Order: sequence, then structure tokens, then C-alpha cells
Amino acid sequence: MIKEISIVGTGNLAYHFVQMISSIDGLNINEIIGRHEKIPKAFRKFELNYSSNISNTLKSDLYLILVPDDHIEDICCELKNLNGIVSHCSGSIDIEVLKECNNYGVIYPLQTFSMKSKLDYSKIPFLLEASNKDVKNQFNEFISKISKNISFEKSQSRFIYHITAVIINNFTNHLIVKSQQIIKSNNLNFEFLYPLIKETIKKTEYMSAFEAQTGPAKRNDKIVMEKHIDFLKKYDAEKLYRAISDSIINTNFINDEL
Amino acid sequence: MIKEISIVGTGNLAYHFVQMISSIDGLNINEIIGRHEKIPKAFRKFELNYSSNISNTLKSDLYLILVPDDHIEDICCELKNLNGIVSHCSGSIDIEVLKECNNYGVIYPLQTFSMKSKLDYSKIPFLLEASNKDVKNQFNEFISKISKNISFEKSQSRFIYHITAVIINNFTNHLIVKSQQIIKSNNLNFEFLYPLIKETIKKTEYMSAFEAQTGPAKRNDKIVMEKHIDFLKKYDAEKLYRAISDSIINTNFINDEL
Repeated sequence: MIKEISIVGTGNLAYHFVQMISSIDGLNINEIIGRHEKIPKAFRKFELNYSSNISNTLKSDLYLILVPDDHIEDICCELKNLNGIVSHCSGSIDIEVLKECNNYGVIYPLQTFSMKSKLDYSKIPFLLEASNKDVKNQFNEFISKISKNISFEKSQSRFIYHITAVIINNFTNHLIVKSQQIIKSNNLNFEFLYPLIKETIKKTEYMSAFEAQTGPAKRNDKIVMEKHIDFLKKYDAEKLYRAISDSIINTNFINDEL
Repeated sequence: MIKEISIVGTGNLAYHFVQMISSIDGLNINEIIGRHEKIPKAFRKFELNYSSNISNTLKSDLYLILVPDDHIEDICCELKNLNGIVSHCSGSIDIEVLKECNNYGVIYPLQTFSMKSKLDYSKIPFLLEASNKDVKNQFNEFISKISKNISFEKSQSRFIYHITAVIINNFTNHLIVKSQQIIKSNNLNFEFLYPLIKETIKKTEYMSAFEAQTGPAKRNDKIVMEKHIDFLKKYDAEKLYRAISDSIINTNFINDEL
């Protein structure tokens, strides 16, 4: 049974895991391990043990590796002789990277985490993977305390979910960044775009996104698209506009052929 | 005072204008004019006069041109001798295209309209432009009956709002189309992505989109991005992924320089 937890990492995801775990009775964060000399400011309110020495970890039931993807393997090397479960939390890294540990798995929350995010953790889908049945049972029991949305998925499925999460969250957010830049530099009012943003999402709940597609690229209206591209040159957004419009046109074409 | 209205066009936008206007006491749709011999099926429930002959229009206070952008000028030619107000409803066409009419303007609802959309019209921002003060007053009085969100905007501002609407709605919707295709062809569950979609939008209400940006392109994590691109080749989405990721990287770079 997972009760004592060590957290490795001090980024956005570590912050939210600390917040999730701290709010649950019967769970305890033994320590946070980071590369900074002192614990980062955002974490001070939790009043936890902090160490910058990973080779001296305390005994825990679970070690959560919450560091950038390209550091996971190194951290794993440091933890491989422990008895507790070692888990990374990345969408795109295979479970096999942890195979030298005794007990291991993956706990991947399919969500975007910023320090300031106000999240309802109980609704976050947790995609889990476990090295053996005992780890599976322990993960199930542990994550059930945090979220009602749990699924065991293989590394390849998780990788695909992660790609689509990047497309849907990171890319959509960037489209909003670009729009906010354009609106701001023309002294216009971004508030006018909120009902549209909301409807964009709402629509996909009662029709397929393919059905919901509207706009100049869907109609292949070249005159409007060229006017837009011409305007977007000064915002360094013409390539972006062309690439997405081309993709919409090609998608229409594929479906017309069916 | 606008009471009698003629609608030119039988597309999604015409459908929603008919629905908006029909629900308001004191307004009457005189006729719908379209290029089909008979009124399209979706409009039959409204039990309205239908004509396919634009040169024989009835006398109305307002003629709403709801046709594709490249047909607006032709329609305007047919209506230029009438006394009623002639209005187009396009985001990207200048008001000047109507200048041969006696009274004219633009009524642009900043929203995406599909036949099946269930919209709260009272929340849609209407961007209006009028050829003279009397048209302005009449538009204000007329659209107030439909929406609480009215703003008079010049053609150039409307054009910019339309571009950002295309970026935010059409492009975001396409990202969802691509994600749904990928998820479906791998027999995975798109439901897991809804909490993320919702959070993507919710975040922008309490932080700037620039602040909210996360993901491999934000971190310039080339290893993850190359793995994603390699996977996306078979979905014809690699150019799309590259263009948006490059744009995120360049945006970071611009902000780092500030």
C-alpha cells in the first residue's frame, strides 16, 4: 500500500503532484529532491523535507520522477536498488526505461499544468502502466484517492494520447497566443472572441469536429485566404496560416474521396 | 425602424439569422431569396415565402445578404435601387462594396455557425458598421433585440477580428479533427482528451495564453518533437506539427529577447 512518497523534481508537474497528495489523508510526502540548493519558493508553503542529493533518498513506498524527459533515465539509475515503486509521469517515455528498478510503472496525468492552474484533480484522466500485478493494484488504489478517471494503457497508447494532447492543448494555446498578439497590437478587444472560443469547444460535444469545420479553408476560398496571409506577414504568422489551411483543404479532399 | 426583413441566401448563416429573427415579436421575414428552385429542406419549418428571382424582391426595411463573400458584390448590384437598408454579414468584406446602395451597412456576428449549432444568440458579439447615422440607429435598435453584445467597428477592425476568429475557431477545430482521426484509427478513447480541451480554454481566462504555454515546443525539446513528427507522417500531419512547433519556438525567442 502506497503511503510514503518521495518526489523527484521541482517543476510545474511536481508542484501539482505535491498539491494533489498533500490534500489526501493517509498519504505523506517524505521528501522532495531537486537540483537547486534550496527548495524553490512555490513549494515552501507545503513545509516538506528537501534534499538536493538523490543518492541519499529516504525509504518510501513510491518514488515519483517528475523531471524533464531527457533526465528520466539518469534519475532511474540512481533509484534502481530501492524496494519502493519507481514511477515516471511522462507521456512520451516508454516504461522500459525503468526496467532496472525492482518495481516500476508510469503515472501519466493527461492534463496541462502551469503553476497557477486551478485544477479539479478528480476529473483528470490518469493513464497508468505497471511492471507487475502488485504495482498495478497499488497504483489503482493510490490514484483512486486522487481521480475518478483511471485507465491502464500501454506505453504506445500513452505516446499517442500524448501527441494528441500536444496538438489539442499546446497548439490551440499557441493559436490563442498569436490571436492575442494581433488583437493587442491593433488595440482591439479580445473579449469579443471568448464566445467563439467557448462555442468552438462546445460544438465538438454534439458533432464531430469534421462536421463542425467552417471557414475559408473549408470552402477553399482562395481570395479570403490570400488577404489573410498578406495581413499576417507582419506578425510572422503566414507560414502557420498556410500550413493549417493546407491541412484543412487536404482533409476535405480526403473526405470528399470517400 | 426595421420590421420587415428580406434574407438573401440559404446557407448556415442564413439559417441562423432566420432562427434569430423568427423568435422576436414585431419582426417579420418577408421572404428568403436563394438560387435553388425550391427552398432547402432545413428552412421549410419556418413556413416563409421563397423566391429564386432576386430582381423581383418585395419591399423590406432590411435586406440581409448572407451569401459567400465572392457573390456579395453581384447581389448588391441587384439591390442598389431599393429604399431599404442593404447589409452584408461578412467579416472580411469592406462596407464600401455596398456603396452604390442608398442605405447600407454590415452586420457581422463573430461566431461559427453550423446548421446543428445550438447557440445562445444573446451572447454573440455583433460587429456593426453603418453608412449613415440613421442606419446606425436602426441597426442598434434592431440588433439589441437579438444580442446584448454590440459594437460598431470599422471594416479594417472587423477584418482583423475575422482573421483571429479563423485562427481561433477554424484552426483549433482542425486540430481536433486531426486528433480525432489519430485517436480513432488507433482504437483509443477521445473522451480522455475532453478535460484537457476544457482546461486549455479555462486557463486563458485567468492567465495570458503566452503564460499558459507548455509542451515540447515551449521547452524546445527536439527529441520528443522528432519522435512525434516521425509518428505523424502516416497521418499527413508532419508539416502541420512542424509549422506550429516552429511558430511556438519563434514566439518564445521573441519574448526572451524582450
